[in-house]
Amino acid sequence: MSFNTFGHLFRFTTWGESHGPALGVVVDGCPPGIELTPEMIQRDLDRRKPGQSKFTTQRREADEVKILSGVFEDERTSGPKTTGTPISLLIENTDQRSKDYSEIRDKYRPGHADYTYHQKYGLRDYRGGGRSSARETAARVAAGAIARRVVAGVTIKASLVQVGPHKIDYANFDWNQVDRNPFFCADAKAAELWADYLDGIRKAGNSVGAVIEVVAENVPPGWGAPIYGKLSADLASAMMSINAVKAVEIGAGFEAAELTGIDNADEMRAGNDRPYFLSNQAGGILGGISNGDPVVVRFAVKPTSSILTPRRTVTVENEDADIVTKGRHDPCVGIRAVPIGEAMMACVLADHFLRHRGQTGREGPVGF
Amino acid sequence: MSFNTFGHLFRFTTWGESHGPALGVVVDGCPPGIELTPEMIQRDLDRRKPGQSKFTTQRREADEVKILSGVFEDERTSGPKTTGTPISLLIENTDQRSKDYSEIRDKYRPGHADYTYHQKYGLRDYRGGGRSSARETAARVAAGAIARRVVAGVTIKASLVQVGPHKIDYANFDWNQVDRNPFFCADAKAAELWADYLDGIRKAGNSVGAVIEVVAENVPPGWGAPIYGKLSADLASAMMSINAVKAVEIGAGFEAAELTGIDNADEMRAGNDRPYFLSNQAGGILGGISNGDPVVVRFAVKPTSSILTPRRTVTVENEDADIVTKGRHDPCVGIRAVPIGEAMMACVLADHFLRHRGQTGREGPVGF
Amino acid sequence: MSFNTFGHLFRFTTWGESHGPALGVVVDGCPPGIELTPEMIQRDLDRRKPGQSKFTTQRREADEVKILSGVFEDERTSGPKTTGTPISLLIENTDQRSKDYSEIRDKYRPGHADYTYHQKYGLRDYRGGGRSSARETAARVAAGAIARRVVAGVTIKASLVQVGPHKIDYANFDWNQVDRNPFFCADAKAAELWADYLDGIRKAGNSVGAVIEVVAENVPPGWGAPIYGKLSADLASAMMSINAVKAVEIGAGFEAAELTGIDNADEMRAGNDRPYFLSNQAGGILGGISNGDPVVVRFAVKPTSSILTPRRTVTVENEDADIVTKGRHDPCVGIRAVPIGEAMMACVLADHFLRHRGQTGREGPVGF
Amino acid sequence: MSFNTFGHLFRFTTWGESHGPALGVVVDGCPPGIELTPEMIQRDLDRRKPGQSKFTTQRREADEVKILSGVFEDERTSGPKTTGTPISLLIENTDQRSKDYSEIRDKYRPGHADYTYHQKYGLRDYRGGGRSSARETAARVAAGAIARRVVAGVTIKASLVQVGPHKIDYANFDWNQVDRNPFFCADAKAAELWADYLDGIRKAGNSVGAVIEVVAENVPPGWGAPIYGKLSADLASAMMSINAVKAVEIGAGFEAAELTGIDNADEMRAGNDRPYFLSNQAGGILGGISNGDPVVVRFAVKPTSSILTPRRTVTVENEDADIVTKGRHDPCVGIRAVPIGEAMMACVLADHFLRHRGQTGREGPVGF
Repeated sequence: MSFNTFGHLFRFTTWGESHGPALGVVVDGCPPGIELTPEMIQRDLDRRKPGQSKFTTQRREADEVKILSGVFEDERTSGPKTTGTPISLLIENTDQRSKDYSEIRDKYRPGHADYTYHQKYGLRDYRGGGRSSARETAARVAAGAIARRVVAGVTIKASLVQVGPHKIDYANFDWNQVDRNPFFCADAKAAELWADYLDGIRKAGNSVGAVIEVVAENVPPGWGAPIYGKLSADLASAMMSINAVKAVEIGAGFEAAELTGIDNADEMRAGNDRPYFLSNQAGGILGGISNGDPVVVRFAVKPTSSILTPRRTVTVENEDADIVTKGRHDPCVGIRAVPIGEAMMACVLADHFLRHRGQTGREGPVGF
Repeated sequence: MSFNTFGHLFRFTTWGESHGPALGVVVDGCPPGIELTPEMIQRDLDRRKPGQSKFTTQRREADEVKILSGVFEDERTSGPKTTGTPISLLIENTDQRSKDYSEIRDKYRPGHADYTYHQKYGLRDYRGGGRSSARETAARVAAGAIARRVVAGVTIKASLVQVGPHKIDYANFDWNQVDRNPFFCADAKAAELWADYLDGIRKAGNSVGAVIEVVAENVPPGWGAPIYGKLSADLASAMMSINAVKAVEIGAGFEAAELTGIDNADEMRAGNDRPYFLSNQAGGILGGISNGDPVVVRFAVKPTSSILTPRRTVTVENEDADIVTKGRHDPCVGIRAVPIGEAMMACVLADHFLRHRGQTGREGPVGF
Repeated sequence: MSFNTFGHLFRFTTWGESHGPALGVVVDGCPPGIELTPEMIQRDLDRRKPGQSKFTTQRREADEVKILSGVFEDERTSGPKTTGTPISLLIENTDQRSKDYSEIRDKYRPGHADYTYHQKYGLRDYRGGGRSSARETAARVAAGAIARRVVAGVTIKASLVQVGPHKIDYANFDWNQVDRNPFFCADAKAAELWADYLDGIRKAGNSVGAVIEVVAENVPPGWGAPIYGKLSADLASAMMSINAVKAVEIGAGFEAAELTGIDNADEMRAGNDRPYFLSNQAGGILGGISNGDPVVVRFAVKPTSSILTPRRTVTVENEDADIVTKGRHDPCVGIRAVPIGEAMMACVLADHFLRHRGQTGREGPVGF
Repeated sequence: MSFNTFGHLFRFTTWGESHGPALGVVVDGCPPGIELTPEMIQRDLDRRKPGQSKFTTQRREADEVKILSGVFEDERTSGPKTTGTPISLLIENTDQRSKDYSEIRDKYRPGHADYTYHQKYGLRDYRGGGRSSARETAARVAAGAIARRVVAGVTIKASLVQVGPHKIDYANFDWNQVDRNPFFCADAKAAELWADYLDGIRKAGNSVGAVIEVVAENVPPGWGAPIYGKLSADLASAMMSINAVKAVEIGAGFEAAELTGIDNADEMRAGNDRPYFLSNQAGGILGGISNGDPVVVRFAVKPTSSILTPRRTVTVENEDADIVTKGRHDPCVGIRAVPIGEAMMACVLADHFLRHRGQTGREGPVGF
């Protein structure tokens, strides 16, 4: 993928820094004739919005999206529709408190991109991390809301499945729970435990990592491509491109290393219209192409690097120093990554849907 | 990435099926003036070659590479050099035994791409898996050998670190061991244990998964790019594009989810020329950009799907059936993935080196 | 090039319709550390702005550019600098008179993209041509202003050289004249003649075509690439992508067809540092790569399709009709194409400069 | 477009030098299930082949194509079919006479890419021009033969319409004549005149330029895209990427500059199924999108730079010298560009067909 552009046929380009006037995204290649209102996008943005509980940063952003282009309401029909031309979305930054940046201007925050941005570019926008801020992910979520409309038959859901050392119990898994706790967690009991655990972490001026699972149902077989255009490779790239993500797996993932061929290969049986699989170790992808089963991706988010505990670092003049990153931070940045993971899943699927249709002319499964 | 092309400035396109006359790769964007002989490529190909021990498939391929273009020896100087134009490499298939394909022609092999290729394209080359065969990886290794020349200052090494449930002991880690056992394993003791374990697996007509760790040393800070062009995102895509790979992680990877911010953020100290890090949880990448520390990637390979144990499947007519995949197969296809992982690492780094140089005009670290 | 994105390393994506709230461009891949103020961009935008004489449309747009991202002023240094991250520019539409669109809603305007947009997308934004409006070119000019900063050593100039049947006399050619007449014309006498001629055209409710010549001086030898990445091919694509352009030529162009090899090949002589050419039929490009001579491109713009004379057309219901396109139009849209041609030249050169530097590590000519 | 790759969904990558062992092309993204035999490709290659008359170079190349991948014949059906995976085509170089290259090794040939390749790469393959040789175009023609199969309903034809100062008379235009003279000329009388004229040019050790017209019929409305993905922009890039091409125009082209809006805009009338145009000044493209009329492109080829008349040049040491380019050359390289122009038209259309189908899901015109 290019520097700030993701996708091939359905592609989007994001821009904007944490403390600039606004951020946004341009979505190109969206099919024409799809109904699209600001509300459809706002809904997803609101789920990602910070400050909704004490477990996410207290930065207060309205995150109100404006559609600047690419949508048109014909006087003769009803409802705004995509025109097939670029959809430009803009979100203003409203909560950029004026503050003293000299601390992060002169020192590199460990675990942050401060040092590497400086090494790459020779300069950096030190206000709130500039481009490396998690605010960029609002633009992805907005693009993802459009992608969902493109693959409207597909259902994309996600759950936080691990916080620090505490994993959910899949026996309790219930998608309906996801919106009933501040963690987007499908296991109500785990969510309760996490609340206590994270309270302690937060009060200790510390932070913790997390794992998110994203599932796409009703993906028809045939999406993806062999070799470098694998659906799995694009999903890996998509998830790894999210801030703070350090690991991605599909289906059985790393556990597949421990399995034997007998246990791992999903056996098949004849179905009514087409075959079905007796298990889904593959996470819905075989040879880089969807097999009709749910596409299952998990990714790990590292603990927030900005913590209230002093850490050793160096100044931009290469001198030893200590740093405490004050300000408003997420004790577990992984929580807000849940809707972001959904958005990236939607964008990858929308792109592959269009690429598959382009090459093969086919929209659904091959019949028998 | 495109269907069969990987990379942006340093980019390569592979082609060829398991049972066609040949396979190959076209490398485009290689810098000019780099010495390149067939031997430099052959060396890497020989490491990937099947049939070198009883733990890899007994298919016997010479895997002899021919350079068809892009390299030129000027009469006035010595040694063949890259010209900056496309380098076409060709490897003939020599061990394509004529056999009866009716079994895999009429049935889908579980765990293989048979069903998904059929669903995508409406037809498939069923001889040996066609394009989804691991033979495609020979082309990657050849491209990787050229990429290594492009980033000649960087050292890329890899080790098998897990076979089935058996992980290496990092206390025994010694890069010098890698070429002294049939597993490319840096832990001599683990290699011994694996030999016994895999013998049992093989004799049981079964197979097993594995984990590979790839390390690149001397990568200067500054390679990579923010957001969608992250070095980590491209590495994830690169590794996930290898046959049978289901998981990728950078640095602490999934373990980062369990860590607190205090433990995970690599602290910094002032060095002679530039700062250094007191740990490498980040795996050498911060904000998608290299930080000067070793770049560390691990990926999981699922167990070989072709096993000698009967599995339930369906025919292409959607009727229940059983299948035993006869033929020459790897009990642990992860072993041969070691040089492939190195090759993909080299290709990603070569691409990012050129992209970084293009945008910034910089070849080394920023001074103070 | 992609739908709404131009370039590879220096790349930009434009968005926005004629009658939407705004239009804009996102420039990605710009080198870091380049001084950039809104004034530097505004200067070029003001040259393209409509309504500056009676020979261009009377639509009054401030065309005031805002920089929303990618530029940062460090407190410790002076002046805003590019950061290497996406530069988002926004231009509000201020003169979108409310009007009755039913005429162009229900009929296709001959010579316009109305019919083809409808055929492609199944719907279209009929207000002012939507995305096919010449307003999109403001975004290109803004991107071009940044590109000029990237190739600061190169001088890019352009002149209108033909209006309808009236060509300039190259004997009168003087770059200093370009900004002294309303036609960006380097031949003062031709400009006088055109004023009269175009007055007549305008009063007759008609329009006329034009030819623009763009020249880039001080392009070092070595920019461009063989085969499909030819500098000439990218320039052809760049100019042909401008609204209403129907032809592009480099150097001698179509006249080269009439020449013999003896007359056409530019002979060379030894210079102080490097060879020079005795003529420039090649327009500064040989084999797709710059040769150090001025890069010379000409392109033809068709007459404005919106005219005050009734034309035969059809309705969207496929019924015969007549149409007169009322409103504010350019009698010769080619005039305003002059700064647009310069902008596209700048963008192509900036991209090839970075690509050349990326692949070869070289910034200037090869010495002897 | 990338260095040696053309296209987006239907894309091909060429490789190979004039005097290497072979040249070839990898076509990626071809739809599956299309019947494809070597003969279908050979037919087009034979039309481009040199040495077929005294008006083209006497280099004798069999130009025999081998399909190395991407085509498969299922035992249960008849005929080889594309599989949707990369199609690798190889053409061996058979007539590379061993000769003394010291002349072109030490001097730059005026009008050739010798100097610019050297400036770009710091070295060059001087044998027969290396990569800048017209032999590369054989690979394009092979790719074009596949592209024709992809857009099988479209008819693509081309004619030489000008040789030196001598243009055809469109009153005599008859497509049936194209294969009845050695010039691919649709005007039999012009062909006779050219035979005499070119004989004189050849005997004088000189060469001459030409213009080719390519026409695609039955292109449905809707192919192409707005702004940078215009069908016209991609055609301009495609034709300008052919060796020695210096100019491209669509429809009325440069003549459009001389026309008024009244004369230039193609009026429309209601047809049976959809509207039709009363003229085709637009060359079948409006706003970058096909309008259903024939797509008409013309391009100019400069005279062969290799001539038997001494020209002034410099050595690679920057010293004055004279050069006579001996060897086998075309007196009018434009003749052989005719099938190449057809091939590039086919490739652009195939790519846009797939991209259009991908974004919109539509294969034919919008109904009423």
